[in-house]
Amino acid sequence: MAGEFELIRAIRSRIGTRSTRIVAASGDDAAVIRADGVIVASVDAFVEGVHFRLVTTSMRDLGHKCLAASLSDLAAMGAEAGEAFLTLGAPAALGERELLELVDGAEALAAELDVTICGGDITRSNELFVAVAVVGHAGGEEELVGRGGARAGDAVGVTGSLGGAGAGLALLERKEHGLPVELGERLIERQRRPVPRLAAGRALARAGARSMIDVSDGIASDCERLAEESGVEIEVALERLPLEEGVDAVAQLIGVPPADLAATAGEDYELLFTVAPEAQAEIEAAVAEAGPGITWIGVVREGAGVRLVDARGAPRSLQGWDHLRARPAPGHDRSRRA
Amino acid sequence: MAGEFELIRAIRSRIGTRSTRIVAASGDDAAVIRADGVIVASVDAFVEGVHFRLVTTSMRDLGHKCLAASLSDLAAMGAEAGEAFLTLGAPAALGERELLELVDGAEALAAELDVTICGGDITRSNELFVAVAVVGHAGGEEELVGRGGARAGDAVGVTGSLGGAGAGLALLERKEHGLPVELGERLIERQRRPVPRLAAGRALARAGARSMIDVSDGIASDCERLAEESGVEIEVALERLPLEEGVDAVAQLIGVPPADLAATAGEDYELLFTVAPEAQAEIEAAVAEAGPGITWIGVVREGAGVRLVDARGAPRSLQGWDHLRARPAPGHDRSRRA
Repeated sequence: MAGEFELIRAIRSRIGTRSTRIVAASGDDAAVIRADGVIVASVDAFVEGVHFRLVTTSMRDLGHKCLAASLSDLAAMGAEAGEAFLTLGAPAALGERELLELVDGAEALAAELDVTICGGDITRSNELFVAVAVVGHAGGEEELVGRGGARAGDAVGVTGSLGGAGAGLALLERKEHGLPVELGERLIERQRRPVPRLAAGRALARAGARSMIDVSDGIASDCERLAEESGVEIEVALERLPLEEGVDAVAQLIGVPPADLAATAGEDYELLFTVAPEAQAEIEAAVAEAGPGITWIGVVREGAGVRLVDARGAPRSLQGWDHLRARPAPGHDRSRRA
Repeated sequence: MAGEFELIRAIRSRIGTRSTRIVAASGDDAAVIRADGVIVASVDAFVEGVHFRLVTTSMRDLGHKCLAASLSDLAAMGAEAGEAFLTLGAPAALGERELLELVDGAEALAAELDVTICGGDITRSNELFVAVAVVGHAGGEEELVGRGGARAGDAVGVTGSLGGAGAGLALLERKEHGLPVELGERLIERQRRPVPRLAAGRALARAGARSMIDVSDGIASDCERLAEESGVEIEVALERLPLEEGVDAVAQLIGVPPADLAATAGEDYELLFTVAPEAQAEIEAAVAEAGPGITWIGVVREGAGVRLVDARGAPRSLQGWDHLRARPAPGHDRSRRA
């Protein structure tokens, strides 16, 4: 395999600069980016065996997914995505070709979303990891939406559909599933190549969403984050969750209720948000223009924590993904450990 | 060990916000930071067994060093350091106490340098890794210094002293060394707890340095980067390198010429820069105010690459650290592989 500097040169030659904001990209000690107003920055790491397995993902899809998941945090703030930085920990067994495929996957998504990969780092490691830092922009903080603004009485909405990524993962983990081929492939694509809801995030922010988070760990967990930061209780009706087509069938295949799969598997990278009831119509119109539909799935109350209720109004206890613990099986029903 | 969210809460409670730039730090999908002018951003990763060994470093020193090395990239641009983001890949064997010690080490340095750790990520991994993203600020790009500005005729300077970190590493790797205890400890401290030259970097930029880089891989490699980005040849006189006290003795101990150790071991995090000859006096005065002295070690010529010459003017071939290859022994003399 080539040395560090040769590989960095090869990576730099494949990456485009897409914004007049970029004064200097990769090649210096640091990237230089024009900014006025506020920047929005977030970091995420993805580790082989924890976030992905090389037997079920291609390097290209991995590059796409790591960048998509990271940019999703900017979408959840209502920011304009700007720049990304990719850090690779690369086992010796991976050749230059594989690493460049990973970069190509990220770069193709960056090109689609008008994002510039402006720097990174590469190092030897025993297990493959990808650390991504992303920077977004806004004119001022008043244009952004945090997790802390939910108020009692708010309606709880979610963009697009849920459970697709979790169903896709379940399919990837078994050889035979009996689903129509195209449907199975669509679910697997949803798992492998999520698309951050950047336009919808900006539209939601402009139209007055009061709090927002992206659905990365499953809405059971993600609602908990919103509730905690806002100091409220969030109630979600499980039967109202907008299930991706095919989630029903996969849920049956693995023996869990479909809504449980949709609420806990995560990785859908939809946006979960709350709005004052009087703003619901405006929000619907704004998001419709940006692409995905929205579904109203619950309500914000005074109190604390998350209340997931089934069709009979009975509370359910479901848990999403904790990155320091084993991942629960999709739909696995258990209380949060202390 | 506690779960992800409990640990993140514990980390957040230990970290201070130090700037009115910070609108929202850790706790949301992303941090929000006011910026006007340009931001300067860089990422770095540090992997157990590649960049550090847990038998020779404490978690606290590791936190310090990872942040220091990352901020050094901002120093090398002449930027004001602002924010940092810490990503940890944590093996199950590491307890919460160890991870918090790592955070404490980074936070103590951040407090010293008026930097705010505004976010991060934590995930399970088999080997410990730390990925750091740092953001700096400047009023405009004209206040910054890149790697590409060296011109034929420039004088080549370096801040402080070289070889200390490499000598410290050599001492860490052997039980007995026969050096005076205090001297040995000072060298080991230089290896474990480098300090980024932020004030000197800003002073150099203001006083007209034309190109600059931090000494992370050893000046043999770092000069090569400057020469490449500037399209020039850089000649350095090895006997003029400002050796840290004790480097001579350690070099003798491990059987390499002292200047070779100083030129190749890296991790000194001094600043290497070039200036027009007529600006040398002003540069000396500006850096003296910021703390470290400077030493003139070479000259920029038309051409390409790096020319290291010994006391008799004979060229030497020395190589610094390549993160994808095995680390050469300090002072090891070899040509660059293709």
